[in-house]
This record gives sequence, structure tokens and C-alpha cells, in this order.
Amino acid sequence: MTTFEPIFVPATLRDAVSDAAWVEAMLEVERALANAESLAGVIPAAAATEIADACSGGVFDVQALVEAGRLPGNPAEPLVRELRGRVSPEAARYVHFGATSQDVVDSAAMLVARNALALVDEELGAVIGLCAGLARRHRDTPLAARTLLQQAVPTTFGYKAAGWLLAVHASRARLADLAAALPAQLGGAAGTLAPLGDDALEVVRLFAAELELAEPALPWHTSRSVVAELGSALALTAGSLAKIGLDVVLLAQTEVGEVAEASSGGSSALPQKRNPVGAVLARACERRVRAEAAILAESVVGEHERAAGAWHSEWAALTNALAFTGGAAAAIRRSLDGLHVDVARMRANLDLTGGAVVAERLALELAAELGREQAHELVRAATARAAADGSSLSEAVEAERPGLAADRIAALLDPTTYLGSAGAFVDRALALVEGAS
Amino acid sequence: MTTFEPIFVPATLRDAVSDAAWVEAMLEVERALANAESLAGVIPAAAATEIADACSGGVFDVQALVEAGRLPGNPAEPLVRELRGRVSPEAARYVHFGATSQDVVDSAAMLVARNALALVDEELGAVIGLCAGLARRHRDTPLAARTLLQQAVPTTFGYKAAGWLLAVHASRARLADLAAALPAQLGGAAGTLAPLGDDALEVVRLFAAELELAEPALPWHTSRSVVAELGSALALTAGSLAKIGLDVVLLAQTEVGEVAEASSGGSSALPQKRNPVGAVLARACERRVRAEAAILAESVVGEHERAAGAWHSEWAALTNALAFTGGAAAAIRRSLDGLHVDVARMRANLDLTGGAVVAERLALELAAELGREQAHELVRAATARAAADGSSLSEAVEAERPGLAADRIAALLDPTTYLGSAGAFVDRALALVEGAS
Amino acid sequence: MTTFEPIFVPATLRDAVSDAAWVEAMLEVERALANAESLAGVIPAAAATEIADACSGGVFDVQALVEAGRLPGNPAEPLVRELRGRVSPEAARYVHFGATSQDVVDSAAMLVARNALALVDEELGAVIGLCAGLARRHRDTPLAARTLLQQAVPTTFGYKAAGWLLAVHASRARLADLAAALPAQLGGAAGTLAPLGDDALEVVRLFAAELELAEPALPWHTSRSVVAELGSALALTAGSLAKIGLDVVLLAQTEVGEVAEASSGGSSALPQKRNPVGAVLARACERRVRAEAAILAESVVGEHERAAGAWHSEWAALTNALAFTGGAAAAIRRSLDGLHVDVARMRANLDLTGGAVVAERLALELAAELGREQAHELVRAATARAAADGSSLSEAVEAERPGLAADRIAALLDPTTYLGSAGAFVDRALALVEGAS
Amino acid sequence: MTTFEPIFVPATLRDAVSDAAWVEAMLEVERALANAESLAGVIPAAAATEIADACSGGVFDVQALVEAGRLPGNPAEPLVRELRGRVSPEAARYVHFGATSQDVVDSAAMLVARNALALVDEELGAVIGLCAGLARRHRDTPLAARTLLQQAVPTTFGYKAAGWLLAVHASRARLADLAAALPAQLGGAAGTLAPLGDDALEVVRLFAAELELAEPALPWHTSRSVVAELGSALALTAGSLAKIGLDVVLLAQTEVGEVAEASSGGSSALPQKRNPVGAVLARACERRVRAEAAILAESVVGEHERAAGAWHSEWAALTNALAFTGGAAAAIRRSLDGLHVDVARMRANLDLTGGAVVAERLALELAAELGREQAHELVRAATARAAADGSSLSEAVEAERPGLAADRIAALLDPTTYLGSAGAFVDRALALVEGAS
Repeated sequence: MTTFEPIFVPATLRDAVSDAAWVEAMLEVERALANAESLAGVIPAAAATEIADACSGGVFDVQALVEAGRLPGNPAEPLVRELRGRVSPEAARYVHFGATSQDVVDSAAMLVARNALALVDEELGAVIGLCAGLARRHRDTPLAARTLLQQAVPTTFGYKAAGWLLAVHASRARLADLAAALPAQLGGAAGTLAPLGDDALEVVRLFAAELELAEPALPWHTSRSVVAELGSALALTAGSLAKIGLDVVLLAQTEVGEVAEASSGGSSALPQKRNPVGAVLARACERRVRAEAAILAESVVGEHERAAGAWHSEWAALTNALAFTGGAAAAIRRSLDGLHVDVARMRANLDLTGGAVVAERLALELAAELGREQAHELVRAATARAAADGSSLSEAVEAERPGLAADRIAALLDPTTYLGSAGAFVDRALALVEGAS
Repeated sequence: MTTFEPIFVPATLRDAVSDAAWVEAMLEVERALANAESLAGVIPAAAATEIADACSGGVFDVQALVEAGRLPGNPAEPLVRELRGRVSPEAARYVHFGATSQDVVDSAAMLVARNALALVDEELGAVIGLCAGLARRHRDTPLAARTLLQQAVPTTFGYKAAGWLLAVHASRARLADLAAALPAQLGGAAGTLAPLGDDALEVVRLFAAELELAEPALPWHTSRSVVAELGSALALTAGSLAKIGLDVVLLAQTEVGEVAEASSGGSSALPQKRNPVGAVLARACERRVRAEAAILAESVVGEHERAAGAWHSEWAALTNALAFTGGAAAAIRRSLDGLHVDVARMRANLDLTGGAVVAERLALELAAELGREQAHELVRAATARAAADGSSLSEAVEAERPGLAADRIAALLDPTTYLGSAGAFVDRALALVEGAS
Repeated sequence: MTTFEPIFVPATLRDAVSDAAWVEAMLEVERALANAESLAGVIPAAAATEIADACSGGVFDVQALVEAGRLPGNPAEPLVRELRGRVSPEAARYVHFGATSQDVVDSAAMLVARNALALVDEELGAVIGLCAGLARRHRDTPLAARTLLQQAVPTTFGYKAAGWLLAVHASRARLADLAAALPAQLGGAAGTLAPLGDDALEVVRLFAAELELAEPALPWHTSRSVVAELGSALALTAGSLAKIGLDVVLLAQTEVGEVAEASSGGSSALPQKRNPVGAVLARACERRVRAEAAILAESVVGEHERAAGAWHSEWAALTNALAFTGGAAAAIRRSLDGLHVDVARMRANLDLTGGAVVAERLALELAAELGREQAHELVRAATARAAADGSSLSEAVEAERPGLAADRIAALLDPTTYLGSAGAFVDRALALVEGAS
Repeated sequence: MTTFEPIFVPATLRDAVSDAAWVEAMLEVERALANAESLAGVIPAAAATEIADACSGGVFDVQALVEAGRLPGNPAEPLVRELRGRVSPEAARYVHFGATSQDVVDSAAMLVARNALALVDEELGAVIGLCAGLARRHRDTPLAARTLLQQAVPTTFGYKAAGWLLAVHASRARLADLAAALPAQLGGAAGTLAPLGDDALEVVRLFAAELELAEPALPWHTSRSVVAELGSALALTAGSLAKIGLDVVLLAQTEVGEVAEASSGGSSALPQKRNPVGAVLARACERRVRAEAAILAESVVGEHERAAGAWHSEWAALTNALAFTGGAAAAIRRSLDGLHVDVARMRANLDLTGGAVVAERLALELAAELGREQAHELVRAATARAAADGSSLSEAVEAERPGLAADRIAALLDPTTYLGSAGAFVDRALALVEGAS
């Protein structure tokens, strides 16, 4: 019921976090639990086999299971009931043995997260490739750097792309770290695992190994940092992507025109429109991920050994955070893939201010002879004059201070020779990312 | 894809805000637009009729439409394309005439909201009835008021229920006000409605009338208070409901035991558990609504004449805010319906402190003869002594200050005679709510 | 400790919500309480007079009081202790009689809010005046409407300002409604007002009247919608202001250049920079207000008769929400006051696309003779051709379809004659706002 | 202006993040910059010395500086101006050479963060010590585990404290990692550091070394993950602390009575009250930190090379996130320091249900002979009967099923022998934390 979700989230991700995927993961958890308990000698091997068969083989009515979860307030209880009905009475005793609903739902959540994170990682990899390509290709393409949306000094489009690149790269690395540490959950009714007797810790170890999840030091029924941390990392990832989206939207403005998405969206009314839809969708996705992460952060504070509401709010929040981070990545991938970069327009925009975009250099140079204050003031006055009467900045400088050599002024005001360390920074970013992969 | 949504949201509400409901609302909007334009003489009557037929009669593949919305970044564009294909070429010119995608989606959002709000209102009405019943029935049932979760002074359960009642009543009234003012959206490509010529304002009037929505003074493509305000009101409504849920969860604690939900949830492991599931689910729902409202509040700040992302983030946020407010209401309805109120346990809990819960009265009375400081100090010492040695507070007072008459102390420490204006406040709340309905 | 607050919040507002202002308001509350209780015959008139004198006359060490509040967890307890020490032992019994700390802090919060809202209202009034001026002056000044930051169709700058105007006007009206309904708080230890006996409700009435606050139906110790609603309204107000800020920032871009703030901010490095600082600060303020409103919305859910933490989180949240809404208004006032509007640049930008910004009209007109599909396709192809080879759209149309009369095309592509109802909407907005004031 | 801040934040932390501390940090940054540039040969050594003297020696009017920041929209610009006035005209040229305001403010922010984090770390260390003490001391102290606030099964108080311990420990470790990686900021007007020529990267390296901050790969003017990540980590830390606060508040309830804070807060009206003020304040602090972290997360999305508002919103958000995380830690330290743990009451509460809290064991045992379904049903019926007629669970079991040996039932229902792996988990947690320190 996340309205018009297919507009925002790729189908593979939707599948990976669907209710069906959650139920499948819960079955996988019950199977792993039985197996671990059988290996530890807590339940009979035959029961474990029967349970594993029931978990793998059967077709479950996901919708009915979830609806049945309304009464107990979670989907694990009806699933366990269903499973018990599918095995022999003897094996039924050993279904979900010693576990609690939260063990199943939390462990399943980690499986769902792992699967979804793999897909997110793939999208991020593609985005990184695209950013790296732009950074490399446009290492030395001059464009105006803008601060507070005002042209400030020249930079290169490669520098801008390198910033995108590093941010997404760092986000991806953080997600990979968290993905590798997703823990299994097994604590029983309230963490003590009493029904498992002395074998409890061994069962936890085996259970985690079965699921290829990390073994937690303690049950984390109400130690939710692991979930909240993932939420935060997803929000920041989506943020890094939406930052690209914001830049693209701004660069694609009719009056700026420095980039255009290859797969622009048409308009229902305007034949001429080429909307930067990928960038726009990424920005929308990010807002959702951030909201979901806020839910998860709030859930860190839960009552005693199981939270009365906070835990329940995590399920959809985690799902959506995963899905829409992937959505943001896919949207930016779409945005950057084949992005039309108008180098000439970038160059032309740098000339819009008649040289004022290089005023910093002029002021610094003149400071050597005039002193800082006077130089700064001269340049300020000249830029104001140029803006007022439409003259070029070099003309205005000459008008303000006749003595200065025109060709020297012109050279100082050439934006393409004032790119500083932009290229070096691009190299550094590329090396860092390539060294890591 | 809001995980396990049926656990939280009633089926009727899920239907009312489903993608199918949104698409149906969009068709209703296109129909109304054609009709209004026909009435205003802007398009031929025959075209309007044809369009209306196509909007009402047809079966649309909702899933395909939404998927097709990924390219343009909204679902209206493919819908309009589909509609144009379903009418004659002549009528096709007049489908969506002069309108923009946002007109369709926003107006549809208002229709969806109106329908969902009607369902929410119904649930809130039921909750109000239940609160009023509890307030009336338990107007004079003593229980301990707790501040910072410490017993403070006696109050009545009716007073507590009256507080719930007024809060939900006020929330409901606010939602009703907003529901009555939901505006139609019609501005064309960017608000000027240029294709409609001089008839534009008349078309807006007729269009709003067709949809039975309010006529806006201006198009509100980027004046989003109307949506954000609804989001906030839903969040506060959910908050009022979750407040009830929190109180129920606390009263239902094993150690308090003053209420129990009739439809308690069982546990997958513990045969004795009677979980207050309704209250728990309401608390979970509230967190989602609040998160969605935050998305909507953020969307107030949008670029120029159509926001590049903020608008797109509203669709799911509005849907979820509506659905989960209804979910919270339904959950509290479930929680309070048949709520077992243990009057004896309330009374017993009032005695837990051996009279200390009425220490305020004792201190006030003694202040008349001992002065405030001394009286307050005497009572503090006595309550500490009683807590330390397990004596009753009256014994402890006697031990601290032998002169005081034992029966007078006992009378002062009777919690059932220190209920203050609890009953009067209940009457006031009931009168206010009943006067309003 | 809100870092660099003077950059964001005017001094008058900082004063109005300072700790000193809160303490002064708490004293006013104690005074009003004593007076009301004296009028109701609950406490001796002499005591009330003495208390009132102590509340008005004295100099209190605000810092020390607040520090002393750390132990009990609120500032009212030490204030009451201090007050008791300043009056005779007899009167000391009647200081804060029957009240609880929350009564004092909540009522004081409402007084602080009222004072701050008056200042916010003033700033909003100024903003409204400025918006109205722009709307009136530029009712017919053509500029490009932008959707998803792409030029869409022509509109007028007046239309844009009218949208700003109505949004701020509506926000201001909502705040005024809430300001007029701010309730006094008086419930005693937990709402029953038991120490006041049968006079309790009369004391509440008199107390509210003394403070010129609304009389609440019930104590609202844990019915916090009144605070949360104010928070939401402030957030939406700040949102309406930040929307203006966003538009100004975008219009002021070097490449757009349609407006410039009169009081632009300079740069520490760049002599030529004219930063739209007012707009930028408004955007920053809005983010804070929204965050504070989220705290207040969360506080609706509080435990029993006094929340164990939620209430305490409200104090700063309310203060900041008020202060930074005022800050946002003051910043936009600064932004719009003397705003340089470059009408020529607006006109020039409309020509940037060689007519494509009026493509909608062309397509609609041609549809009459060519049919909608063919017309739309012709215009799409022509705009693409024009964009590709740098020709004007009228040339491109001619190239695509030689038969069409050049002057007719030129007329159709004149953006200044395709403003639709922009002017009429401006008139409507001005009438609405002026009718209201 | 964070209302009543001294109630929430220790004085040392307030000082560490005050405006004065920020200004001092900015001066330190200007000093380090001059030094680094002198070392790299970019500016004369004499100028660097003069600048360093001006930065260290002078007394600055913090309030005036900040007020002056309103015009340019940041506090660095007036600071730089002031500094230039304090050195010789020759040295003035080299003040802030090649840098931008954001370089100064961001680097200062990292210094402020580092200092504050050291204080936060200290408080967390104390909390960890207290948690470890409780875990060790009460490793085997039985108390009821509660899920959804219902007694579930027995656990130990040490297990609960071990959960607190690990969560705070993990949060502290994460903060330490982030503290060690706080980067310097130096990019000049927009990241290219053009004025520094070929020495730019060397200057960055030296500058970071001077400040003992990490050297960033690229300027991070609009790559804000570093700030947002810190915000998230602070929010989760505060969450871990507030979780303790929530548990303490619940355990301290009059009806539970298992713990009491040593430094309880008194009430202005109620002599008997012992409020768990530390726990309450921690919960309030956490809400603020989470709100501030949300501001920081939102700021990840910023325009081009300097965000127009997002950046400005970070300053106070970072300050408050640091201050109130420290506040939460200090409050929990107060809460746990000398916490009165009522072991007898814990034991008594375990008996409240007449054995039902061990129903899980009974059902598991009986399942061996009766089969799972029948055993579960028997226990459910017996607990219901016991609850209804007030009999003990063992009596009720006997009534339901006469054959079972009474002493066996009694042994199975002894809560103190059903603690499972609680102790082993405590050992594990202690080993993990002690191994780390």
C-alpha cells in the first residue's frame, strides 16, 4: 500500500521485501532452528527433518497468514500454528522449540535485509561506475562552482562527480559492513532460552551458522541498535544519492542547461518538456527512507524484554528503508546513465558574469600591489559596475583603475586557468575508489 | 509493501487507499473535468459524454498503469494516454483538456482522502462511544493517578477515560473540519489555466462542484499546507489514540492488573500470556502516521510551480497517514471494546502505599495546626518510615507525632474520599461531547 | 545554546522566549493562582496580596533557579520554594496552593507562547504586506513558470507572489486562531484539584480569566494536542516562509538572475558574491521548527497523568519552534524588503527556449486542424530540432511543416500573450487577504 | 535558548559547545591555517606568527561577533574581518588565505565535536561501569522478564543490566570510531583551493595535522555524511541510554517497586513522591538528540558546492546532539548511581501470578507425556482458573488434572530454578566489555 510504489522501486527489490519474502524467510528460520536444535541434540533428528520438509516444501497462503496475525499481533504465531499442523504430532512438539515469535520475525528481518542489501549494493555499484566515468571523463571540464546557488569560482564537472562518487562509495562501504554483521536472533520467550537448558548457547551458535548470520553476544529483543543503525546508514545512502539528484535537477534547469537525462520524462500537457525524472524520483525516495529511519531510531527505546509497539513499527520501516534506498539508487542510475553533458553550455555559463566568477584571483593578485582591502574593494566596485552597465569585468576594472594592463586582466579573468586542484582531487577520489574495489 | 499491513489496517481502509482506489479517483477527476468544461462551453458536450463513459465503464489494468508511470514519473500521464486511446480521435483532443498531471493526482488524492476520512471518522466515533461509556460507568471508580509513573493522588477511572474521550473528540472534530474543506486542484501546466481562456475560473468552480470538493482560491501546486495540515491532524489523532494505548498497556501490566483486553493476544510460547494487542498495535500505527506526517510537513517547501521530488513523496505519505490512523482507531476500538476493568484491583492498588497516596491531604490538614513546613516534613518522614518498616502510614504518623487522633488520621488517609473534582470533570467532558453530537 | 542563534532569531523574540521570560511567566502564574483562590474564598486575601507582591516585586536569579531544577527535574519546584521563603509563614501555606509543578510550567508556556506569537504575527504581517506589494506590482509581469525546475509555460511574477501571499496569510490566520485559544492549566497533583474542594472549577475559571487564557474543559496534563497543534502550525508557517526562500534562492541564481536581495550577504573570499542570505536563513530556520514540531507531536503520547520525559522535552521544543518561526519570518521579510526584481531578465529568460515555453498553445491550436496526436508530435519534433540546431522554434516548425503561416506561428509563440488567468488569480488573492484584514 | 538547559545538560558540556567554544575553535582553525600555509611556504612565516598571536591572545566579543554574522549569514565572516583588523596590513592579506567561511566553521565544528565527545565518552564510561556493576552483582537475582509489559518468564536483573551494558558499550565504541576520524575541512571558495596553487594538497595535509583532525580525501562542503553519521550515532547512543531510563521508570513504578533512584526528585505538592528523575530526564534528552539527528540527516542533501540553508541548520543541531547525548548519559549515571535494587520485591513480584510466570516450563514438561496441544491447553486452562478463583497455579493444575504429583508441579513452578542462560549471558557481556577496555 505504498502508493504507486512501482514508480519508485524496481521489481526485484519489491519482490525481495514483499510479505511473501518475509514469510519465506520466517520458514527458513524455523527450518534452521530445528536443524540447529537437532545438531545440538535438543530435539530428535527425525523431527528436524520433518520440520525442514514442511518449511521448504509447502505452499503457504501468505495473505491468510498475515491476516491471522492480527489477533496475536504478529505473523509468527499463525505461521507456527500452521507449521505444527503440517507435521506429525510428535514433530509438532519440536516446531519453534524454545523460541519466541520475535526470534522468528527478527531473524527473518535480517535475512530479508541481507537479500535486499545485495540488490541495493548492485545498484550502488552501477551508480559508482557512472560517477567514476563522469569524474574521469570530465576531470578537466570547466564549470562554475556554485555556493548558495551563486556562481563562486570555476571548478570542473569531474570534481563535482568525484564528490558524488566518494559519498556513494562511503555509503556503500558502510552498508557492506553492516550487511556482513547482521545477527541472528534467538532468545526464547524473554532472552534466557531456558527450554534449551545447557545447550542454549550452542544452539544459538549453530542457528546463526545455519542462517549464515552473525552470532549475537546476547539476544537483542530490546537492544535495537542493529536495526536502527541499518536504518540510519540507508538514510545516509539515500541522502548521498538524492544529493546527486538535487545537483542534476539544478544543472538541468532550462536556464542552466548543463546536463539532461537521457531518459527524460515527457509531460502530459507540454510537448517540449524533458523532465529529469530519475533525479526527481531519487529525491522523493530519500524522503521516505529518512522517515523510515526515524521510526527505527525511535524504536531503540523499548520496554523491558519486548517493546509494546516499537518493535511492531520496525517491520514496515525496515522494508521501506531497504526498498526505497534501492529505488533511489536505481533512479540515480537511470539519471546518470547516458547523461547528456553539455560542455559548451558549462563554458558559456562560466562567461555569464563577464569574468566575475574569477574575481577571487583578480583580488588576490591585485592585493600584492594594492593591499588586500583596496584590492578587494576595487574588484567589488568593478563587479558592481559591470553588473550595472553590462560591461565586461575587465572593462569595468579598467574604468575603475585605468593603470592596469588589459591583457593581464584578461588573463586573470580566464576561468579555464583557475581550476586549482580540481583535477588532483578527481585523481585522488578515483584512486581511492578503485583501490577499494 | 507496508509489511504485514493487514495486521495494522482494516480491510475497508486498505481498499479505500489502494492503488486501484487512486486510479478510480483519477478517472473520476478526468470525468469531472470533461463535464465541467462541457458545461462551461469549453469542449463539446459529445466529447464530454464519451470521456465520461470511458472513465466510468472501463476496466483498467492498475498495475500496468502504475508501472508505466515510472517513465514520466507519475501515474497520470499513462492514464491520460490510455483514456485517449479509448475514445474517438475527436474526443481524444478533449481528454484532460488544459489540465496537468498534478491536477489529476492532487484532486484524486483529495477524493481518496475524503473516502478514507469517512472510514476513519467511523472508527473514531466508535472509540468515542467506548470512552464515553467508560467515563460514565466509572465516573466514581477510584484508582491511583500516576505522575512520572508514581502513584500521586487518587482519581477515578472515569476521569482518565474522560481525558481520552475529549482528546479523541477534538481530533475527530479537527479532521471533520479539514475533510469538509478538501479542495479540488486545477491549474493546468503551471497554474494559469491558459488553454481555458476566459472561462478558466468558471471551469474551476464547476469542476470543484462536480467533485463536491472545495473551490480553491488559487491552484495549490506548490502551496501544500492543505496536505501537510491533514497529515498533522492525522498524526495528532493517532497520538490521542496511542495515548490511550499507552495507558492501557500500563494498566494491564501484570503488576498493576487494572484492565485486560477482551480480545487479548496469545503467545506462541507462553500459555498464560494475555497480551494487550489492540493497545500495542495502536502504538505502532501512531509511529507510522507521525513519520508520514513529517514527510508531508517537509513537502510544504517545494520548488517554483511544481516540486521536484517533494510532491512525489506525498502520495504514499498521505495514503499511509490515512490508513494507519484508521488502523490506530480500529486497534483502540478493539482494545476498549469489552475491556475488563478490575475495580477491586484498582482499589487494592490504592492501598499499596498504606495511605501515602493521600499524603497530600494529610499534609494540607496538618499544615493548619503545624505550619506548612513542619507538616510537610512530618508527612515525608512518616511515609519514609512506613516504607522502611512496612508499617501503615497512619501508624507511622502516630509514631512520628503521638498526639494526633488515630481515627482522624485514618479518615484523612481514606483514598476514596479524596477524589476532588474528578466526577465533575467527567460530567463536563460528557456534556461537551454529547452536546457536540 | 542554540548555536549562533542571533544569526537566525531577532532579539525581541529571543527575549520573549528566554529562560528569564519563562520564569517571569511562572511568577505571573503563581500570582494569578493566588488571586483566583482568594477571589474564590479558598485562601485569605492577605496571603494572596503578599504572594502577588512577591511575584511581581522580586528579582530572581534565573540561572540559579534553573540549575536548582535539575534535582526535582523541573524549574517550578525551586521557584515555589523560593517564593515561600519570600513571604510570611502564614502566606507560605498558600503559595502554589493546590497546584502542581506542571500547572505552573504549562500555564507559563502558554503565556510565553502568546507573547512570542504576537511577535511572530507582526513579522508575518510584514511579510504579507511585502508579498501583496509584489503581487500587485507584478500582476502582469511575465516570467517563466517552472515545473520540476524546467520552464513550462509563461506566468506572471505577481501570480507567484500571490501564491506566497495566500500561504502565509493562511498560516497566520491559523496561528491567530490557536493563539486565541491557548488554555490555562490547573489540575493540581493529578487533575482532580482535590485540595480546592467544591470551589475547584470556579478557581479554574478565575485563574484562566486572570491570565486571559482560555478555560480548559479538563486539565490537559497528558492531553497535549494543544501544544502539538501549535507546533504543527508553526512548522507549516515556517514551511510557507521557506517556500518563498526556496523560490528566491532559485530566482537569484546567477544563471536565472530574476531577483536579488537588497541586503545581500557578502563573502569572506569572493568580492563579487551577492548571497540571498535572508532566503537561506529562512530555509535553515524552517528545518529547526519542523524538528521541534516533531518533538511536540511525539509528546502527545504520554503516560497516565504526567508523562515521564515527553513533557520535559516540550519546553525547549516549544521555545525553539516559536523563536525560529519568527526567525524565518524575519528572514523572509529581510529577503523581500527591497527585493530587486529584474523584469527584463524575466522577459529574456522567457525567450531562452526560442518559443518552446509556449509550445502548449501551439500544440493546442494545431490540434484543431491536425488532430491532437499529430499536432503534439509536430511540436515535439520541432522543439527537438530547435534545441538541436539552435534555430528558433518558429523556424523549426516551418521546417517540419512548411505550410504554416510564419506570422501566425510567431503570434502563437509570443509568451506575453499566454498568461491565462494569472492576473485574475492575483486579484482573487489580494481581495481575499485584504478582505480578511 | 534551549529552555531550562541546565536541567538537562551538565555545565562542562554546556561550556564545551557554547558559542564561546565555537568562536575559540574558529580562532584555532585560523591559526592552524596560517601555520600550515607558512610551513608550506604559501604565506610568510612572520605573517603566520602574527596571525597566531592574534588568534590566541585576544579577547573577542563573542556576542557581537555572532550578531554581526546575521548580515553575511555566518559567524566566520565577521571573525575574519575582526582578525584582519588585529594584525598588520601585511599580515592581514594572509589571514584566512585561500579559505572560505565554511572551511572555518566546519573545521571548528569538528574541534567542538571532538571536545564534547571526550566529555560524552567520560559519562558513558561511568554508565558502563554502573551497568557492569549491576550485571555482576545481580547476575543471579531473579526477576520477571516482561514482554509487552506482561510477565513472561523469569530472568535475572543481571541479564537486564547486561543488555543495557552491551548497548551502551557498542554505542560508545561507535562514537569513539567516529571521533577518531573527524576530518578537517579545507577547500577554499568552492573546493578547488585555487589560491594555494600547487601547494594546495600539502597545505590540507599540514592543516589537518595542526588540528589533529583526519585529512579528508576531498573537501566535504556538500558531502555531509560525516556530520550526519555522527548525529545518527549520537541519537542511537541517546537511545541506548533512554532505554535504560524507560526500564528504570517502569521498574520504579509504585506497583512494581523493584528499583528506586538514590537521588529521587521530590514533588512540589506531594510529600511521599520519589520520582525517578534521572531516568525521566534521560528520556527527554533522547527525544531532542533524535530530532537534531534528523536535521543532520536531512542536510546530506545540499545544493552544488555549498548548501543554501541545510548547512546553516547543522550548527545548532550538532551542538544540541552532542550536549543532550551527554545530558542523557549524565542523567542515567545519576539514575544508576546508588540505585536501590529491591531484590525481595523482585522475588515477590515473580510470585504474583501464583506460578504462571513459569507456565512455559510446565507446558513443555507435560508435553512429553500429554502431547503438546493437550499440555498447552491444560496449562492455559489452569492459569485461567487460577486467575479467576485466586487459587495458586499448582492447585489449579491439580484441579484440572488430578493425577499429577503436587510436589513435581511445585518444583516445576519454582521461578528461581528457571533462569536458563541468563547468568551465562551476563558473563559473556562482562567478558566482552572488559576485554575491550
